[in-house]
Amino acid sequence: MLRLAPPGFLRFSQSNSFDVIYGGGESNVAVSLANYGVPVDFVTRLPKNDIGECALMEMRKRGVGTDKIVFGGDRLGIYFLETGAVSRGSKVVYDRAHSAMAEIEKGMVDWKFVFEGVEWFHWTGITPAISQGAADACLEAVKAASDLGVTISTDLNYRAKLWKYCDDAKREEIMSELTSYCDIVLGNEEDAEKHFGIKPEGLDITTQGEHVKAEAFLSVCEQMMKRFPRAKKVITTLRGSLSASHNTWAGVLYDGKTMYKSPEYQITHIVDRVGGGDSFMGGLIYGLLNYPEHDQNALDFAVAASCLKHTIKGDENLATVFEVEKLMGGDASGRVAR
Amino acid sequence: MLRLAPPGFLRFSQSNSFDVIYGGGESNVAVSLANYGVPVDFVTRLPKNDIGECALMEMRKRGVGTDKIVFGGDRLGIYFLETGAVSRGSKVVYDRAHSAMAEIEKGMVDWKFVFEGVEWFHWTGITPAISQGAADACLEAVKAASDLGVTISTDLNYRAKLWKYCDDAKREEIMSELTSYCDIVLGNEEDAEKHFGIKPEGLDITTQGEHVKAEAFLSVCEQMMKRFPRAKKVITTLRGSLSASHNTWAGVLYDGKTMYKSPEYQITHIVDRVGGGDSFMGGLIYGLLNYPEHDQNALDFAVAASCLKHTIKGDENLATVFEVEKLMGGDASGRVAR
Amino acid sequence: MLRLAPPGFLRFSQSNSFDVIYGGGESNVAVSLANYGVPVDFVTRLPKNDIGECALMEMRKRGVGTDKIVFGGDRLGIYFLETGAVSRGSKVVYDRAHSAMAEIEKGMVDWKFVFEGVEWFHWTGITPAISQGAADACLEAVKAASDLGVTISTDLNYRAKLWKYCDDAKREEIMSELTSYCDIVLGNEEDAEKHFGIKPEGLDITTQGEHVKAEAFLSVCEQMMKRFPRAKKVITTLRGSLSASHNTWAGVLYDGKTMYKSPEYQITHIVDRVGGGDSFMGGLIYGLLNYPEHDQNALDFAVAASCLKHTIKGDENLATVFEVEKLMGGDASGRVAR
Amino acid sequence: MLRLAPPGFLRFSQSNSFDVIYGGGESNVAVSLANYGVPVDFVTRLPKNDIGECALMEMRKRGVGTDKIVFGGDRLGIYFLETGAVSRGSKVVYDRAHSAMAEIEKGMVDWKFVFEGVEWFHWTGITPAISQGAADACLEAVKAASDLGVTISTDLNYRAKLWKYCDDAKREEIMSELTSYCDIVLGNEEDAEKHFGIKPEGLDITTQGEHVKAEAFLSVCEQMMKRFPRAKKVITTLRGSLSASHNTWAGVLYDGKTMYKSPEYQITHIVDRVGGGDSFMGGLIYGLLNYPEHDQNALDFAVAASCLKHTIKGDENLATVFEVEKLMGGDASGRVAR
Amino acid sequence: MLRLAPPGFLRFSQSNSFDVIYGGGESNVAVSLANYGVPVDFVTRLPKNDIGECALMEMRKRGVGTDKIVFGGDRLGIYFLETGAVSRGSKVVYDRAHSAMAEIEKGMVDWKFVFEGVEWFHWTGITPAISQGAADACLEAVKAASDLGVTISTDLNYRAKLWKYCDDAKREEIMSELTSYCDIVLGNEEDAEKHFGIKPEGLDITTQGEHVKAEAFLSVCEQMMKRFPRAKKVITTLRGSLSASHNTWAGVLYDGKTMYKSPEYQITHIVDRVGGGDSFMGGLIYGLLNYPEHDQNALDFAVAASCLKHTIKGDENLATVFEVEKLMGGDASGRVAR
Amino acid sequence: MLRLAPPGFLRFSQSNSFDVIYGGGESNVAVSLANYGVPVDFVTRLPKNDIGECALMEMRKRGVGTDKIVFGGDRLGIYFLETGAVSRGSKVVYDRAHSAMAEIEKGMVDWKFVFEGVEWFHWTGITPAISQGAADACLEAVKAASDLGVTISTDLNYRAKLWKYCDDAKREEIMSELTSYCDIVLGNEEDAEKHFGIKPEGLDITTQGEHVKAEAFLSVCEQMMKRFPRAKKVITTLRGSLSASHNTWAGVLYDGKTMYKSPEYQITHIVDRVGGGDSFMGGLIYGLLNYPEHDQNALDFAVAASCLKHTIKGDENLATVFEVEKLMGGDASGRVAR
Repeated sequence: MLRLAPPGFLRFSQSNSFDVIYGGGESNVAVSLANYGVPVDFVTRLPKNDIGECALMEMRKRGVGTDKIVFGGDRLGIYFLETGAVSRGSKVVYDRAHSAMAEIEKGMVDWKFVFEGVEWFHWTGITPAISQGAADACLEAVKAASDLGVTISTDLNYRAKLWKYCDDAKREEIMSELTSYCDIVLGNEEDAEKHFGIKPEGLDITTQGEHVKAEAFLSVCEQMMKRFPRAKKVITTLRGSLSASHNTWAGVLYDGKTMYKSPEYQITHIVDRVGGGDSFMGGLIYGLLNYPEHDQNALDFAVAASCLKHTIKGDENLATVFEVEKLMGGDASGRVAR
Repeated sequence: MLRLAPPGFLRFSQSNSFDVIYGGGESNVAVSLANYGVPVDFVTRLPKNDIGECALMEMRKRGVGTDKIVFGGDRLGIYFLETGAVSRGSKVVYDRAHSAMAEIEKGMVDWKFVFEGVEWFHWTGITPAISQGAADACLEAVKAASDLGVTISTDLNYRAKLWKYCDDAKREEIMSELTSYCDIVLGNEEDAEKHFGIKPEGLDITTQGEHVKAEAFLSVCEQMMKRFPRAKKVITTLRGSLSASHNTWAGVLYDGKTMYKSPEYQITHIVDRVGGGDSFMGGLIYGLLNYPEHDQNALDFAVAASCLKHTIKGDENLATVFEVEKLMGGDASGRVAR
Repeated sequence: MLRLAPPGFLRFSQSNSFDVIYGGGESNVAVSLANYGVPVDFVTRLPKNDIGECALMEMRKRGVGTDKIVFGGDRLGIYFLETGAVSRGSKVVYDRAHSAMAEIEKGMVDWKFVFEGVEWFHWTGITPAISQGAADACLEAVKAASDLGVTISTDLNYRAKLWKYCDDAKREEIMSELTSYCDIVLGNEEDAEKHFGIKPEGLDITTQGEHVKAEAFLSVCEQMMKRFPRAKKVITTLRGSLSASHNTWAGVLYDGKTMYKSPEYQITHIVDRVGGGDSFMGGLIYGLLNYPEHDQNALDFAVAASCLKHTIKGDENLATVFEVEKLMGGDASGRVAR
Repeated sequence: MLRLAPPGFLRFSQSNSFDVIYGGGESNVAVSLANYGVPVDFVTRLPKNDIGECALMEMRKRGVGTDKIVFGGDRLGIYFLETGAVSRGSKVVYDRAHSAMAEIEKGMVDWKFVFEGVEWFHWTGITPAISQGAADACLEAVKAASDLGVTISTDLNYRAKLWKYCDDAKREEIMSELTSYCDIVLGNEEDAEKHFGIKPEGLDITTQGEHVKAEAFLSVCEQMMKRFPRAKKVITTLRGSLSASHNTWAGVLYDGKTMYKSPEYQITHIVDRVGGGDSFMGGLIYGLLNYPEHDQNALDFAVAASCLKHTIKGDENLATVFEVEKLMGGDASGRVAR
Repeated sequence: MLRLAPPGFLRFSQSNSFDVIYGGGESNVAVSLANYGVPVDFVTRLPKNDIGECALMEMRKRGVGTDKIVFGGDRLGIYFLETGAVSRGSKVVYDRAHSAMAEIEKGMVDWKFVFEGVEWFHWTGITPAISQGAADACLEAVKAASDLGVTISTDLNYRAKLWKYCDDAKREEIMSELTSYCDIVLGNEEDAEKHFGIKPEGLDITTQGEHVKAEAFLSVCEQMMKRFPRAKKVITTLRGSLSASHNTWAGVLYDGKTMYKSPEYQITHIVDRVGGGDSFMGGLIYGLLNYPEHDQNALDFAVAASCLKHTIKGDENLATVFEVEKLMGGDASGRVAR
Repeated sequence: MLRLAPPGFLRFSQSNSFDVIYGGGESNVAVSLANYGVPVDFVTRLPKNDIGECALMEMRKRGVGTDKIVFGGDRLGIYFLETGAVSRGSKVVYDRAHSAMAEIEKGMVDWKFVFEGVEWFHWTGITPAISQGAADACLEAVKAASDLGVTISTDLNYRAKLWKYCDDAKREEIMSELTSYCDIVLGNEEDAEKHFGIKPEGLDITTQGEHVKAEAFLSVCEQMMKRFPRAKKVITTLRGSLSASHNTWAGVLYDGKTMYKSPEYQITHIVDRVGGGDSFMGGLIYGLLNYPEHDQNALDFAVAASCLKHTIKGDENLATVFEVEKLMGGDASGRVAR
């Protein structure tokens, strides 16, 4: 997608230029991984025009493989972003209908070719949300990956404004089928509830501005595992929105037995929180791959990685493994690295 | 529409910001007129979101009435513009499908209300090009205006890439009906040919980089008048594209009897040629209103106005009557006005 | 006025460009109201040059009526603004002497025409401060409004550096007469004291960096009401300046019987505090008009509105009713609005 | 002065930032000389505020002595500049009334101190134009310089819009007295006529867009010499304004016997023509000092220097002696200097 | 290399930001080829720091293979560029000593690995100029390529300021040996003379600002062929520097029998001429590969390609094959591509 | 040095322009002093090119004397700076090897001329770190200053990455000899330990993110005084790095008898922390000169001054004496100065 954003904290009507950033849910995860040195390809559908070409170049620049991208359709999805501060939240105006990706259809991607030699496949709940065709293609991908024994992860990513082509029951059916193939399931506070009606017990987690307690999510994780037996790990990010400028950030990981909790970070001067969840997922995949049998480390890497993302402009997390491990190791002092 | 353009002469892939300008065929004409002190309203359909609101504000800022605009639909049309130089032409990537205006339908605008107390109505060939609904609404408007005795003008504005919803025969039928209601018909070198198959005799006007001769257009004008008997004046802009940086610019006006020719201007250092035709139309309407019975003056005003437009960034012509009349009076010296 | 400000936190001598913003006390209030959908006109005097025209366009863009503006004089008032951070306060260099507005004189505005069909008139203490002529015109306006039964409000807005044309006694006399016509009187911590010698009892309110207590202002309000019997409501903003980057913000409203107190907001990452008081006044007028008989709501709207202003660049408050009511309803979480 | 200009070719109403440049007639000459390595001081009156300080810093940065500047007054003069192209000339909106310099008065500068050890004094016709006080101070300076045997030069610089405090007769009287002390007198095509009613014979030099012929100026020079017998050299710049983007540029110098003519340059892609005359004067003073007895060289240096100025943004000529001499030597190829 | 350039036409001392562009002789050629769809790798030595990484990303973004790059050394070479206009030429300040590439040594690159499956190797005269080590590595490369039957091309690219580590005789020896392995030899007007003392007969080609005649180069080409018998084609670019803003541009190609001449282009509004020669080389290689046995076409493609380069900011030529062929086909009209 | 920094919080790979700032350890101290009105000269070695000239101009602009600067060498030292936020620290990439200053040698500066009439000489630990030649020149300077009875101060400024030309023992020897001539010795938490192995007793001061206790430094100061008997005052800055955006800042000064402690400031929204130590030194020298016999005041001035520096972009502290004394007096409210 193409992000168009007035510079600084300007409102849309105050600016005569927009900062241009190319990104998007799955591609942000891909960039995180490429950045950590993990070989990764991004599969999407891009229009054959200069704007689609620019999105492709950003992937290539960041070291993400682009050979599996298919071309067609008329436009790249756009979103307009106004960056908020303190009590004024950031504002997103979506203009992604009719994008090349929204008009993808079953059969357009050769998933056998895509998954050749691949170990891991990640998708997010945004893809099936944008159109029936995208949901179909996503299911096709998940099944193909499953057949080939590829590890599958998802970020449930509920977006109320996107699910327009079907009703709630159909949405739950689609998401349930897709999620049933997943080994690793990530959600934030709302996703499990909105997608599957699964809520924590005894706590209203949507209370704004409060420190969200990790304990409450144990019941959510247990319910998720019961519903999706193939899931080996269920993970939740925990964001406390004190203001648009100051959030707390943490996560929990449940492997069916143990509930791992990360430290909670104070992100006191947020630079850009868009892409926070994607950076968590990127960090988590890296962590699970690089700290096998050490889920605490994997979780801590994911949380530290996405903590750093909040200090970086744009959708992508450009932190390095060195930087993430430094923060994960406890050094949040932000001293100058000379 | 929203124009997104890399600054200066940068190509799309070189820029991480886009200059933001709101404009569009008919709105550019409206701004020209407001700028000359002519009371004017712009009728369109805008989405109810921040981007639509920004487009509205630009109209309001320029003094164009916005009370007749209707709201609805999902998005504002977008075009991406890369500014060329010398042998590299400017490049436009359209992303205007599914805009609020493209999805307009018959009955959405209350044309009686719109034309109350109105003397002049202007439309362009871009509107019927974008969708059947827009063509229908345009016809509805033209008929209502005609019924109320409003003067009607058009800029034929052929855009090959836009006419997608119908075949060539249907296109000619639509344009013929719409044009048949018009009192004033403006076209550039290609419009009469592409829309109605009307060509100048004995001259290939598409030869690039040459000074196009006004004489050749007499036959075009005569054919146009024969085909559209209601047309009182047929006008053509004459652009000689020596390069993306240097054009010649002139115009002819035929009133059925006399062929008026403007002087030819050398625009040696083009700042922005998009909106050139619209600025001509804005100047022409002003000229016809303010120099009645002096078509030579009206034509000269239009040509001088649009000549100045080429020195102004953006789609809109922000030249004043004083500036246009100074140039029209022969002062092209560009001395500092202290 | 024209605000010229180095970008970001640069000092004047570090920048080779200035951000350009048009605004000013009363016009900021007008923009707030237009933004909330209240029909509003701005009355001022502007020079007939391009810079005056730009100021006018900004008003028009924001939906403020400009038909009552008069033209004349040589220049638009200017102020240079350097934005501070933490312990370095923002710095204003005024260059507003000899502005078109400063050189206004009695009789230049046709107040009958101005107040035709008008319900509310607002003026600020800055106008009489700039010149005898401006004070005269202001008095003329206030009397005309009073004769026509228009509700009158004022923001006392003491500015030591502006009152140059008369001594302190004369200043108090002028302000007293003007204020005596007012129904609604707004001041901040210093205004009542500096203009009328009215102080809170038993508390030094100018102590910097502390949380200012609302209680102390009861005595100020009572004294104000006694002195200006026509005043129906006296309102005070309460700013706690912890640093240039972090303020607390609240307000109290006294209607002669009850002292309403707003919640206190922590504005932890100020984007721009200039125009804070104006945005409070804009919110207050909207609140009083839209929540009649609910002064607590009116006050809360005003405080929430101006709280949001501190997150917006420029003099104007571009927050919407929806945004203000969301914050007023308790949601200060600053979550992304997707 | 402070120049505020929209970037690129934007009109005032299109820009939300202004480029900031400090400069002004005499200071531009001073910067030219400092740039050529000539020790030079600038005498002016600056306000004691941040904006005045910025102007001072620019002088200091460029190596101009600032010890003789006096402080006082309220504001720095401002001018707003919109850069034109082709047939749209640049536009200047002056806001220099009431500047610190405009409010200078006789006696404020200690001219003895100023001229201690000084060889050359330069003033321009802009100074006496802005106020009676400035004219008085200028006369005071000229007399003091004359008494001390300092060479005096002037650039007549007629500006119709500035001379407001007196009528034409008085203006001619003031300028005549001031000029009568000068050794070196520079004017452009209009100055001699507007100031002293001296016109070339048999040629209308104000014809725009034409190559102005040097020959015609001989009679102007002769008349000037007759009227101002102290003048040793009379010099005229010859600008042919083909358009705002393309000028021709040349000069003539008359020493009472010989009429020296410079080559004529084609300035085909003007970057900034403001300060062109000042850069000529700076080059001329350098030339007269460094090529004594070789007036042709001095003139050629002046013309080449100001030719280069047209390729440099801002009021100041930042060309070096090396660059000027390269162009003066005939190399106008503009090859890359690696 | 890292190019740091003040924006627009600003001089170094006028700007507080520099535009950042990564490029360099050979990499520019590589980008041209990648842009035309030719698989290409760039071999260089980059420092292991963020700046080196940025240069790498630019290559990757443009589709150039980076797997053969070696890492080491301390810094990326830098050049500062000030863009000239009209009579003021652009100015380059080199800061490339001690770059990672300058400190390359024989043996650091595994040329066998580099040339595996490679058909063509291109080097430029800049590489051996920067250090003995670079010259050694270049010779090593050329020999390895030669052994493997790889086609070898060179752009002689004489840069007086770079050759510091040896005297003129040694330089000629080094260049002669390197060139002796080449199949395709490109030079501009000066290269053959400065490197090998080979001059055209009967014409002073260094005369600036004149249209350089192709005919004169026949003798140069013949002498080159005699001296370097392995050379199959000798090509020269012909630049006429009318000014920094206006150049003429053409080329000739000699295959030992026929002297092919390209059309001459008028580049009337140069955007950026740095990288002009590299873009010619990129076009030439593409042309020779894609129009085998049609050297006229290959030459015409090269000239048209580099003509377009002059309209593009930066060192790289971002023109597409479609654009080059359009210009090559005679369409220099620069019309808007909608 | 030349600082090149992506704007805002962008990472190197996200920006296509770098902000340009000239500064450096000793020159920052000089600018502070000039800014406070203390006559000061800066001695360094600059390359004779445009970039060196720009650095010189910045000095001149700020009022620092530049007559004692010597010229030679090839390049100005560069550092690339990426500004961090919260848990992501700022990042510096040095490119200062082979700078004109690094290649200075004994005898290049005429220290007698330099110290004529001079009262105070300041050097920092960065100078001897960059090369043997620089260390030699520094020693030469210190000895000459000492001979002439000039007060000598140093900021120990340990930079691990710079000391490359010698081993640790040699480094300690060099620094010990240089420091032995000093009257005033400033260090931060690490300097005494890294340079001389002197640590506080019973406290690990490098613990990050904690409030560092002043008490612990008494033992450091005592040890320093014992080792360098000529030192009259030993001063330490105390930085608590809570995050890259929030630091605490304080200092202690020991005169051999009393340990003076400053207040501790909360710098909650850091704008730029580079140059913090230099601004402390500038403030300290000013304080010691202007509050003789009042070391508490001198220390408080230094701490307040450098506290303000953290709110100012760039290496230089542009705070005025008025601003520093206001903060030093307890007013940290950051109110708008109108």
